[in-house]
Amino acid sequence: MTDATALIEGMGRAAQAAQGALAQAGAARRTAALIAAAEAVAAAEGAILAANAEDMAAAEARGISGAMLNRLRLDPGRLAGITAGLRAVAAQPDPVGATIAAWEMPSGLRIRRVRSPIGVIGVIYESRPNVTADAGALCLRSGNAVILRGGSESARSSAAIHRAMVAGLRAAGLPEAAIQLVPTTDRAAVGAMLAAQGLLDVIVPRGGKSLVARVQAEARVPVFAHLEGICHVYVDAAADPAKARRVVLNAKTRRTEVCGAAECLLIHRAIVDGLGAAIIADLIAAGVEVRGGAGLAHLPGVVAAAPDDFGREFLDMTIAVKVVDGIEGAIAHIARHGTRHTEAIVTEDREAAERFLAEIDAGIVMVNASTQFADGGEFGMGAEIGIATGKLHARGPVGAEQLTTFRYLVEGDGTIRP
Amino acid sequence: MTDATALIEGMGRAAQAAQGALAQAGAARRTAALIAAAEAVAAAEGAILAANAEDMAAAEARGISGAMLNRLRLDPGRLAGITAGLRAVAAQPDPVGATIAAWEMPSGLRIRRVRSPIGVIGVIYESRPNVTADAGALCLRSGNAVILRGGSESARSSAAIHRAMVAGLRAAGLPEAAIQLVPTTDRAAVGAMLAAQGLLDVIVPRGGKSLVARVQAEARVPVFAHLEGICHVYVDAAADPAKARRVVLNAKTRRTEVCGAAECLLIHRAIVDGLGAAIIADLIAAGVEVRGGAGLAHLPGVVAAAPDDFGREFLDMTIAVKVVDGIEGAIAHIARHGTRHTEAIVTEDREAAERFLAEIDAGIVMVNASTQFADGGEFGMGAEIGIATGKLHARGPVGAEQLTTFRYLVEGDGTIRP
Repeated sequence: MTDATALIEGMGRAAQAAQGALAQAGAARRTAALIAAAEAVAAAEGAILAANAEDMAAAEARGISGAMLNRLRLDPGRLAGITAGLRAVAAQPDPVGATIAAWEMPSGLRIRRVRSPIGVIGVIYESRPNVTADAGALCLRSGNAVILRGGSESARSSAAIHRAMVAGLRAAGLPEAAIQLVPTTDRAAVGAMLAAQGLLDVIVPRGGKSLVARVQAEARVPVFAHLEGICHVYVDAAADPAKARRVVLNAKTRRTEVCGAAECLLIHRAIVDGLGAAIIADLIAAGVEVRGGAGLAHLPGVVAAAPDDFGREFLDMTIAVKVVDGIEGAIAHIARHGTRHTEAIVTEDREAAERFLAEIDAGIVMVNASTQFADGGEFGMGAEIGIATGKLHARGPVGAEQLTTFRYLVEGDGTIRP
Repeated sequence: MTDATALIEGMGRAAQAAQGALAQAGAARRTAALIAAAEAVAAAEGAILAANAEDMAAAEARGISGAMLNRLRLDPGRLAGITAGLRAVAAQPDPVGATIAAWEMPSGLRIRRVRSPIGVIGVIYESRPNVTADAGALCLRSGNAVILRGGSESARSSAAIHRAMVAGLRAAGLPEAAIQLVPTTDRAAVGAMLAAQGLLDVIVPRGGKSLVARVQAEARVPVFAHLEGICHVYVDAAADPAKARRVVLNAKTRRTEVCGAAECLLIHRAIVDGLGAAIIADLIAAGVEVRGGAGLAHLPGVVAAAPDDFGREFLDMTIAVKVVDGIEGAIAHIARHGTRHTEAIVTEDREAAERFLAEIDAGIVMVNASTQFADGGEFGMGAEIGIATGKLHARGPVGAEQLTTFRYLVEGDGTIRP
């Protein structure tokens, strides 16, 4: 057994023991821990910002780039966001024990299906130290123990936030091992987590494509994740022009680096030179590079798309545009290039909307709304630990409720089976 | 690429293509196919029984044992059971497109969570030819394509039943590739199914422990299964004697070979010589071998349990019995030896019942009822493709509804995210 395997095994056993106590402690204690953690983070502001300043200085000394530095940086405003997030999760309904369904059988059995924690969740993330609080809070809310493994750049910041989370657990009389932070930046610890069948029940990777790809390829533990969000907006011939223009512009430009950003615009052939041209002009005016497929070269400012621009996640101010032969063409293109994340249609034709809703295989399918709404907060989940594009268990935004499983509770009266 | 891999890849692609059509065809067409399949099985009775007679003769020639021969055998009564099962699934509500939840957000978005098929299900089974119809029917009801791989002993019987299922699909105008049977008994085909990531979405093994263990160890595709059903009945000090006696006797003896049969009886220390002795006498009178732990040797007919009799799946007329120090002892024993299948308490003490319901981690937790009710039919699911003891997605009996995933369908009115 390697050191990393032994470390994760010890943490996993401690997490399993803590998880039982956490689940049995009841909603009020979990809420108290979340509120105490928010208070502890606020009280530790100086220490957390000092730790973050050390992380930032070390990162700058290593020549780390602007985007990653930005993800790493904490300031009083961002810390206030973290404590507000903790309080928001504290205010959410506690899912543990909630009855999903209840019925009675002719045998006399009374059957309830109730939510239970999944068990121990592993979260593997990179430079954003706020994940320490966000993921810790959602696991605590759902009665799961969590083992957090942050990136080396944010190690001091994450440790400082983690101390505050543990103070919250302690204040509520909950076991400290319910939220653990892997105390090493040795990459072998990630491998040990991915192999920890029987100790970890699910792994959630939070980070760039290379991290998620590694986790999906290597994990022997189930994974909730999305590798890419290649989201399409299809503008139908029956689209309302004003709605189409604002939805497309928002879907692409509100934030380009998020997984719910649109990467490809599909335009019905009949409206290319009218509404299509107007939408493309809007995008270009906003600073977007428009890479057009066949039948779009005559529009001002459009550059020619390469074949691999379709099915490509740009994550910046670039969009691929394709002319399609109506809704069948759009559905076929999405089936080929989509990543089961979020897909949208803009149309006033109810039949086209219904067909799109029925036939698109994705976690989130939208009508007349921006793909940028792909977010647990915007779905009313309060917060999310990530967005999943798999088909099993959790799909779309993953909030506290999606971090639960269920049990059937069955009551009889000495009932036996004939 | 081996022949087996190429075979499964071709079947998988055909299944994916068929699945889209199956899902879009609507509930009425799926129901029509199920009814037509029932009629086709009934019409093919002679051919199916002839094929089964060949399988039986070949099995007998190979010296196959009584229990396996019994699982393999079909007769007019068993065939009537198969057609009745198909009609029952046809009468079940179709889960595809059902709304699980619906809500509206302050942004104006209207969000629905609706059921969708998972995709392509692989079913790997052994000698029971009825699985061909049962599993095919549940996958059809839930809009999933299925690839069936039966055991070599039942190859002719399964092929004859499969022809009838395909006739049902054809009669309803559904693609024949929605229900495929692997046309070879080459064991490499099983390996190819277990490795078929991206083609199969879930695998369900139906068979003995060695098959399930192989599938769980090797599969790169998610698995819905239970390896063992080590079910306990805990008789509390506050148990009603009559209820306890009939529940324990039924849980052990109704059918001993099923996964929901009780394998271990836990008795509260305070009632060993009263109710405990009566229950043990009942079991012995019924022909059960009672293997008792410490504190039971003085009871007539009890043989001494070996340490590994606890946590052992007997699947016959044998039961292990242990004296425990109240509900805490029972919960601790089950946490150590249970397999998250089905666990039961017999008590009139509401507090003890609530604690058992809250603290036992198992797919099914029962109060005052026999563990033999662990069955999709007894849960009102109409039928089950198996029982799962994993924590993710499906748990307990897996019926048509549990063979679905979900999508979020979101509607706005040109709604954009600020």
